[in-house]
Amino acid sequence: MTNTQVTLVQIDNYGPWTTTPRPRRETDLQTLQSRLYADLSQFVGVRDGYVFFTRFDNMVAVTNGLTRADHERIQETIRNRYPVTVSLSAATAASPADALVEATELLQDAGSAQDGDRTEILRGEFLSPGRQRPDDVQIAHFDVVDATGTYTDELDAFATFRRIEQGYAALMAHLHERHGGLAFFVGGDNVIAVCPTMAETDYAAVVSHVRDTTDIDLRVGVGRGRTASEAGMDAKQALETGRELDTRVECAFPAVGECATD
Amino acid sequence: MTNTQVTLVQIDNYGPWTTTPRPRRETDLQTLQSRLYADLSQFVGVRDGYVFFTRFDNMVAVTNGLTRADHERIQETIRNRYPVTVSLSAATAASPADALVEATELLQDAGSAQDGDRTEILRGEFLSPGRQRPDDVQIAHFDVVDATGTYTDELDAFATFRRIEQGYAALMAHLHERHGGLAFFVGGDNVIAVCPTMAETDYAAVVSHVRDTTDIDLRVGVGRGRTASEAGMDAKQALETGRELDTRVECAFPAVGECATD
Amino acid sequence: MTNTQVTLVQIDNYGPWTTTPRPRRETDLQTLQSRLYADLSQFVGVRDGYVFFTRFDNMVAVTNGLTRADHERIQETIRNRYPVTVSLSAATAASPADALVEATELLQDAGSAQDGDRTEILRGEFLSPGRQRPDDVQIAHFDVVDATGTYTDELDAFATFRRIEQGYAALMAHLHERHGGLAFFVGGDNVIAVCPTMAETDYAAVVSHVRDTTDIDLRVGVGRGRTASEAGMDAKQALETGRELDTRVECAFPAVGECATD
Amino acid sequence: MTNTQVTLVQIDNYGPWTTTPRPRRETDLQTLQSRLYADLSQFVGVRDGYVFFTRFDNMVAVTNGLTRADHERIQETIRNRYPVTVSLSAATAASPADALVEATELLQDAGSAQDGDRTEILRGEFLSPGRQRPDDVQIAHFDVVDATGTYTDELDAFATFRRIEQGYAALMAHLHERHGGLAFFVGGDNVIAVCPTMAETDYAAVVSHVRDTTDIDLRVGVGRGRTASEAGMDAKQALETGRELDTRVECAFPAVGECATD
Repeated sequence: MTNTQVTLVQIDNYGPWTTTPRPRRETDLQTLQSRLYADLSQFVGVRDGYVFFTRFDNMVAVTNGLTRADHERIQETIRNRYPVTVSLSAATAASPADALVEATELLQDAGSAQDGDRTEILRGEFLSPGRQRPDDVQIAHFDVVDATGTYTDELDAFATFRRIEQGYAALMAHLHERHGGLAFFVGGDNVIAVCPTMAETDYAAVVSHVRDTTDIDLRVGVGRGRTASEAGMDAKQALETGRELDTRVECAFPAVGECATD
Repeated sequence: MTNTQVTLVQIDNYGPWTTTPRPRRETDLQTLQSRLYADLSQFVGVRDGYVFFTRFDNMVAVTNGLTRADHERIQETIRNRYPVTVSLSAATAASPADALVEATELLQDAGSAQDGDRTEILRGEFLSPGRQRPDDVQIAHFDVVDATGTYTDELDAFATFRRIEQGYAALMAHLHERHGGLAFFVGGDNVIAVCPTMAETDYAAVVSHVRDTTDIDLRVGVGRGRTASEAGMDAKQALETGRELDTRVECAFPAVGECATD
Repeated sequence: MTNTQVTLVQIDNYGPWTTTPRPRRETDLQTLQSRLYADLSQFVGVRDGYVFFTRFDNMVAVTNGLTRADHERIQETIRNRYPVTVSLSAATAASPADALVEATELLQDAGSAQDGDRTEILRGEFLSPGRQRPDDVQIAHFDVVDATGTYTDELDAFATFRRIEQGYAALMAHLHERHGGLAFFVGGDNVIAVCPTMAETDYAAVVSHVRDTTDIDLRVGVGRGRTASEAGMDAKQALETGRELDTRVECAFPAVGECATD
Repeated sequence: MTNTQVTLVQIDNYGPWTTTPRPRRETDLQTLQSRLYADLSQFVGVRDGYVFFTRFDNMVAVTNGLTRADHERIQETIRNRYPVTVSLSAATAASPADALVEATELLQDAGSAQDGDRTEILRGEFLSPGRQRPDDVQIAHFDVVDATGTYTDELDAFATFRRIEQGYAALMAHLHERHGGLAFFVGGDNVIAVCPTMAETDYAAVVSHVRDTTDIDLRVGVGRGRTASEAGMDAKQALETGRELDTRVECAFPAVGECATD
């Protein structure tokens, strides 16, 4: 059964900072945000975690394998290199959504996101690396079937963007409400979802739901592992297999169909 | 009347590159994409343009003030520092949506986004800097009224994210279909829209529409200028005014209410 | 005759910051410094200037073509994205060394580099873009003849590094004392010097001096232009010519040999 | 006794790449190099190693604690995000200089630095993390006594730079020839040296030598640890102690004076 450690990353008092003493130049803010995200992505990535940019001032990370000390060092390196600081809170649950609910509550208990005195909070429990198991994290990597031929090369860029966003919105809502999974757009026509233990038939139902409600044809590869990186790389490989076989759902683990049984 | 120069930025053959010879590590791709965007944001930003990350492999920029030579240098600096190259196409129209349609077509005419031989295309016409006028660009900067108190500090992080996305989706669709405006989420609870000439009452109707359909309460500041930066900074200032006065729509130009007359 | 605008970039109160409240992690400082330099290099570079990392907390830039407003924007973008701020002072002279002396004095007059209250100073005069001339900047690009075959592939990496440094030190001293030129190591076996008007025979003498005193065999290409970028690109092309013809000094301008007459 | 694992990082075939098909814009190269260094510094730094920029195309790292798999991942992440690749070779010895000699030979045996077919070499042996000991790495952190008051605030910026460089050159030569230590300028007035086991009296002699030959007054803090980060942070703390006590040499370990006995 999955046991996903989720970390909420929140830039401290960011909104007020962006307009003090007067609104800061938008392109500088965009650069700041995207580089901060890139740095977190590398830092967490070399420890086999994933970070999703989400709203940029609030990011969600899958951090199985990262200790409290790792989280402290994230705070240190941001403080040393950026004009802003970050608060972090972590929680672990079978359901990624539940873990994030708990992590969010821990941070909200420490004060408002726009409280100038609430900085560099670090809350939560961290999985002991020794207790990691090979099915702690389940990652589903979705993309749109022939997105380039169907959309990018055919529609105008904004229409394509809207179509992808519509499919993503339906997927995000369905996975969250029905399964407690957290889906994030990661660029192009790709969505990566951190899922609880789900069966292949569950994924098939998700793909059907999105096609029925938005007419977007998705494909998904699913992997699992001790860490987001392990699970995510297997998911990508499974997605490649799905492309080759022109199937809609491919699970990387044991045997197709068995994914529900663990 | 607005006369917006829009540039479509497309990473050449990016999808295949990300999986060749096998899927590349996701955190590296995320880092690559967000840094490429950050660099473009700075490059275009110092020339007073805006870039929106959109799908990351396809980005949309407002480039009034940037010449063909500037676009060539973007291609050069990316080629010199990244493992990928970019194609660019630009078009200008009173309607930002029309400009992007034209820019997209120019690029599609040059070949598929996944054609390995179609690299570093540069197409389109560029506004002469001497012909820029003070109302060429109209920018509307939206945010959610008391997003922190209503959502960030109250709901869990994913629920907040979904609420913001819902508001954004409604706004994006309405502005695009009704007005030919292009709206982009830029982080936090902020959306920046590149608009055609629109009246204050139009913006009030947009805000009402989003509230009626999604229950998200938006505020907007509107500015205009020769460039995205000029218009955008005025829009931010207007948004600050709206916060102080607790109004929903503030226009930075001439006198409030006159914005419809140009 | 050259008329070089030199800008001194100084991180404000940097030393104390690096040890407050306790010494900051070295790898974070290295990352901060090198990224700050990279950003300045891009910012100044897209305006056709050059920045040299020098001591990293004090950097020297050739900024012909950059106005006071450009310098203000450098300060703004650093403030918006880094935990430190920068002071800038600029001066122009026929001799790059004289210009830097004057720029340094302007900044020293404003207070100590470690005065916590002396932040974001901007001093000096800026060349009017309209008055730029095609021989304002003279750049000499040096490298070591067959550095790879002679050193990199033969000696151990530190011995090679020391040899290159020795050649560079002799070159730097000679150019500075004899001509008022400013030479900077830029990586590999490359040194770029900002020079006053100098004749081809002067460069030949420099190359001889370095060979006689350190046994390092240098080659140099020289260019001139309105900006560092123009002059520097011509210098690189001239250096390529020198490699092809196996000569030691190549001037890009009018005719070889005439460089002394202007 | 020290047991320092040194890694040589070499950009593959970099010289030819910088001029193919024609010389690339210098500011792009500077940006590429310094960002590549910054990324390596972070990557190695979060594993408690140090990287020195050295010549940028050839960098030297202290990598105690980094495994072969870590080195492979460095190559992967560079390949995924840069237009260049890197070769790595590692060796371990009591003398850092000996380790680098061996690492260099391993790489030279694989082919020339400018051989287009010699890419992503990975050679050498890596210390088992289980066998790390608390005195494997000895780091000496030097700075110039009152550099700001004596130089930065008094001389012009280039004269200061030259003075710092002269002190550094003398220090580098002495440490290398006499002790087999590797000293690197790291910005400002700071030099970090990776040393073999050396006594406090050895450091005092180094400081005297530099003062006698160049009139530069150095201070040094010395630390040791399992990793560069441990040793280096202790060295920085010792340097702070030296500043407070106005001494010239401070060792962080056991008792001052005992550093020679291990």
